[in-house]
Amino acid sequence: MDINEYMQQLGQQARAASRAMARADSATRNRALLLIADAIVRDGALLRAANQLDLDAARAAGLASAMLDRLTLSDAAIDTMVEGLRQVVALADPIGEISNMKFRPSGIQVGQMRVPLGVIGIIYEARPNVTVDAAALCIKSGNATILRGGSEAINCNRVLAKIVAEGLSGAGLPAHGVQVVDTIDRAAVGALITMPQYVDVIVPRGGKGLIARLMAEATVPMIKHLDGICHVFIDAKADLAKALPIAFNAKCHRYGTCNTMETLLVARAIAPRVLPELAELYSTKEVELRADPEAFGLLAGYPHLVAATEEDWSTEYLAPVLSIKVVGDLDEAIGHINQYSSKHTDAIVTEDYSDALRFLREVDSASVMVNASTRFADGFEYGLGAEIGISNDKLHARGPVGLEGLTSLKYVVFGHGEIR
Amino acid sequence: MDINEYMQQLGQQARAASRAMARADSATRNRALLLIADAIVRDGALLRAANQLDLDAARAAGLASAMLDRLTLSDAAIDTMVEGLRQVVALADPIGEISNMKFRPSGIQVGQMRVPLGVIGIIYEARPNVTVDAAALCIKSGNATILRGGSEAINCNRVLAKIVAEGLSGAGLPAHGVQVVDTIDRAAVGALITMPQYVDVIVPRGGKGLIARLMAEATVPMIKHLDGICHVFIDAKADLAKALPIAFNAKCHRYGTCNTMETLLVARAIAPRVLPELAELYSTKEVELRADPEAFGLLAGYPHLVAATEEDWSTEYLAPVLSIKVVGDLDEAIGHINQYSSKHTDAIVTEDYSDALRFLREVDSASVMVNASTRFADGFEYGLGAEIGISNDKLHARGPVGLEGLTSLKYVVFGHGEIR
Repeated sequence: MDINEYMQQLGQQARAASRAMARADSATRNRALLLIADAIVRDGALLRAANQLDLDAARAAGLASAMLDRLTLSDAAIDTMVEGLRQVVALADPIGEISNMKFRPSGIQVGQMRVPLGVIGIIYEARPNVTVDAAALCIKSGNATILRGGSEAINCNRVLAKIVAEGLSGAGLPAHGVQVVDTIDRAAVGALITMPQYVDVIVPRGGKGLIARLMAEATVPMIKHLDGICHVFIDAKADLAKALPIAFNAKCHRYGTCNTMETLLVARAIAPRVLPELAELYSTKEVELRADPEAFGLLAGYPHLVAATEEDWSTEYLAPVLSIKVVGDLDEAIGHINQYSSKHTDAIVTEDYSDALRFLREVDSASVMVNASTRFADGFEYGLGAEIGISNDKLHARGPVGLEGLTSLKYVVFGHGEIR
Repeated sequence: MDINEYMQQLGQQARAASRAMARADSATRNRALLLIADAIVRDGALLRAANQLDLDAARAAGLASAMLDRLTLSDAAIDTMVEGLRQVVALADPIGEISNMKFRPSGIQVGQMRVPLGVIGIIYEARPNVTVDAAALCIKSGNATILRGGSEAINCNRVLAKIVAEGLSGAGLPAHGVQVVDTIDRAAVGALITMPQYVDVIVPRGGKGLIARLMAEATVPMIKHLDGICHVFIDAKADLAKALPIAFNAKCHRYGTCNTMETLLVARAIAPRVLPELAELYSTKEVELRADPEAFGLLAGYPHLVAATEEDWSTEYLAPVLSIKVVGDLDEAIGHINQYSSKHTDAIVTEDYSDALRFLREVDSASVMVNASTRFADGFEYGLGAEIGISNDKLHARGPVGLEGLTSLKYVVFGHGEIR
């Protein structure tokens, strides 16, 4: 079968299944999730064998070790998947909730009901655990889904696809409620993002290059995650007992995450006190500091000091590297952030009430924080219970996206025979 | 200047102005709205003169009379615009509202703040009143906007653009907060919908053809309004004292609106009682009834009776025409609606509790109603205070879109020095 025909078929099947998925009650959707968890425990050996095939092929193809790590399905990773499924079962069902039913002067009562989006397409890296995590969130939120994982995980994903389909059937849900694209042909992605008649939204996960390509080609709307160029601004009125741990944690807790600080801004009035103390902390981790001229002067003697270039302000290092700039005041800090930030997460450290409120209001990012590490910007820390991604967009879902991001609200009217 | 350069310039100016619009407090935005209202009163004669130029040109070009009606800015229409501005002033400010601030186990407190989207592009017909209505909603919601009205209204829109810009400046807001595209070149639309760097969302208003073209070409997300193929289903357990007025009102209150019923479904068990009585009502308005074979038999003798074709089920008549189908049960009704409805508004008339709940849950439309006329589906009737359009989409905004649809939520974190 031609790849486009194949994808059309998956789309039709997903659309048909989406009606039953949306109609199913909480208990049915949870039963499917528990059946899948049990089957993963039962078929652990099978999964590891399939994963071994993927790993052998990936090593033969010379895949980078970081990618091999992500591809590996260890016993611990299997346990985490199973635990994740059970946690999703325990989450409150977002579907069917009716809110704000208010009487209007006409006599009708109007509010909104939370409903599934319909069919969700997810495009992600060669990480078999994401197959299960993403399927779980879509099942819980009453959506059908088409999963397109990185081709290097195809053997493992095939086994998982079978387990998930059996779990759905076992609970009385359509097996096509979750479909895994069973081809390594990259044209499958092109087809998936251009069939709005079958797919309501695409959630892409992966590198900036992939997302840029999808943005140029997609006709299906996307909830997309771009880069994280996050800032911490240490205000003139900052409490150093908070500023120093936050600036250290935001950079050094983990280097490769999107909510890691990449640029530190320091108010001129406090920079001579802050920067030398921070340098001592960063030196313990050998963090390279790329400083603007003013910060450079204050950091003289730091062993890993480099002069920042214009490019540094828009670079996501994902590494023990930090750009530092001294700014005159809050306005200059907000101006810099709104120009260079990727609108992911930005924080101010201050004891000044008015500066805190202005920062929250005027910084145009998905998460804005006062006196906390940018590392808190994630669905679990925010209490969403789970996370399908972090959205840099403003429409529909912004910031960490949990189950609610996979739903929509429709208007509900209770009437008593009213006419206009 | 080349049209693309011109649109880029508008885009840059809008983006720059959007920061000040977002930052402005409620009083400032309201002051701008009141200054605009006063200036419209003051410049009434100027506006009517400009409108006369447009009308003369439109008549010379042979514009249809319905379009001339929409283009006409009568004294009453001017009063309505002014009244509309003052009503928008009276609405609660959606911007800056912080909600759901909850403490997390880590110690941080997390919630969301409602913020403007940024820059909104609005594409609409040759209706000068929409220029003011749309500008008012965008100013109130702290957004910058680029307005592209139908070219036949260009003279009137130029005067309005000047009035709006002066109102903004008078209140201390940037004059570029609202810009009217000052060219009749249609390429302006193509440029507007493909500059995501400057425009955050497009709200298109107009015919299905326009929207289809925009959907194919736009790279900026859209909140779009397609057609309204609305259904009323008279269930076997319907109370005829409600069913008859609702079915009559939903069709005959106004023919040209998107929330007008286009197809009536009647349960087989009740059809022999309902249809003859309804026919008497519809005959007073000479409504043409296009019936499926079963309804055709029950309506025999009705003077404007036609056999329905497959095409009728997906036709928005916007006229005194109604398609009618007899269905076996609720499942068949829901199946028909989910297949043919434009997902705008659908209603059930029933006294059966379980049927009512199933209809609300399973009909996949922006508005679902029990025992009320579909004509209630609008922003004013729902209490939104104002309406920029009605969305057939599921993402971001669904159904009538008020001020909230022009906003986004960002996460706000109050910390006390927390790190991970």
